[in-house]
Amino acid sequence: MEKGADSPGFLQSRKQFRRVKLSDYERQYSAASVIYRQGDSPDSLYLLEKGRVTLAKTRGDKRSLQKIVTEGSFFGLEEFLLGAPHEDEATAALDSVVLELPRHLAESYLLSNPKFLYELCEYLARKSRSLDKAFFLAGRSEGARLAAALWLTLQGGGNGQFPVNTEEVLQSLFGATGLPLGKIADFLAELERLEIVGRSEHSLFLKSAEKLFRYAEYLEDKEHFG
Amino acid sequence: MEKGADSPGFLQSRKQFRRVKLSDYERQYSAASVIYRQGDSPDSLYLLEKGRVTLAKTRGDKRSLQKIVTEGSFFGLEEFLLGAPHEDEATAALDSVVLELPRHLAESYLLSNPKFLYELCEYLARKSRSLDKAFFLAGRSEGARLAAALWLTLQGGGNGQFPVNTEEVLQSLFGATGLPLGKIADFLAELERLEIVGRSEHSLFLKSAEKLFRYAEYLEDKEHFG
Repeated sequence: MEKGADSPGFLQSRKQFRRVKLSDYERQYSAASVIYRQGDSPDSLYLLEKGRVTLAKTRGDKRSLQKIVTEGSFFGLEEFLLGAPHEDEATAALDSVVLELPRHLAESYLLSNPKFLYELCEYLARKSRSLDKAFFLAGRSEGARLAAALWLTLQGGGNGQFPVNTEEVLQSLFGATGLPLGKIADFLAELERLEIVGRSEHSLFLKSAEKLFRYAEYLEDKEHFG
Repeated sequence: MEKGADSPGFLQSRKQFRRVKLSDYERQYSAASVIYRQGDSPDSLYLLEKGRVTLAKTRGDKRSLQKIVTEGSFFGLEEFLLGAPHEDEATAALDSVVLELPRHLAESYLLSNPKFLYELCEYLARKSRSLDKAFFLAGRSEGARLAAALWLTLQGGGNGQFPVNTEEVLQSLFGATGLPLGKIADFLAELERLEIVGRSEHSLFLKSAEKLFRYAEYLEDKEHFG
């Protein structure tokens, strides 16, 4: 398992960011407030300094959780780099502090910090590899597809042990796989039995991202060889 | 549809690469020769200057085409950036010229060319978005999954009209989706009827990558709303 976006190197870079006294660009968001909406133009680079942010996509009348952003990670980065409208909505899940650099500032900062840009390349490369693996797994069996979707949704936390509302996880997996909710609930119960996922009140949390990914691979192999 | 890795900006950068007189690092590969193998350590940055390269993955006794690399594109880039072993095998599909920069040279070149690094970030961001979309589509219906797999495999060519051996396409889609070969052949015939895919002798070629992606979205919507 590769290290997540919230790896030490990344936190280091965040400190560099802060050294250039950009605290004027820090914004506070109270829980449940919207940071940007689907379709908004990508005018800023966002870095989550404190709190938690969720990205969700709306398609038709369905809203599905896409990803959980944890402290020290960028979000909306691809859209910023490509100048393409945001494809999801970013909402503060907890009271959060976000560094929002306007485009001109962000670009000149990036271009004058090649080491940081190099780290950004590494981050994007890691993401692209994760997605590549998830796509491969998604093609094989329902179980592998579910595991890959759960892995993509929750891996923002690295091996993050933070709890996510159970209903939100169900909706996210439904959005990603289109499988019946009953089947998804059975799958989550099986992951709980295997101690890959834990449960607390109305929330689920990932006990080991690595184990989840290995389980997805196992399901795929089972389909293949079993 | 976003521009591919072989966009004008990228070709520009390749010229920059050449201006620093790196022709000592150009290597010729005759058709069917192997450039690197699965599991090899990522000691070089590869840029395809001329010809065509295919990336294939072996799993168990199955070998499946993963991607077609076209002139002006990098390959093995994620592994290079992450220092992780190659996850696929790169083979020259035609007689090819490859710029192979050893790590120390590539890193110092990249770090002294922040504009080029920025372009690399854009390239990786584009790739990550493509994969994200493909994963979303892969979760929905067999047709959307097949279309997404075909799109990922062939989009190396942008709207590339180059032909790919039919058997290789079938095996690639089988590798990515695990669906029966008969179903995959029917799907390709349907794409031919819709003029998304063309056929010449023993090869298939993509008439429009954009139309293929729209078709994948349509299949997903049909599953969703139909």
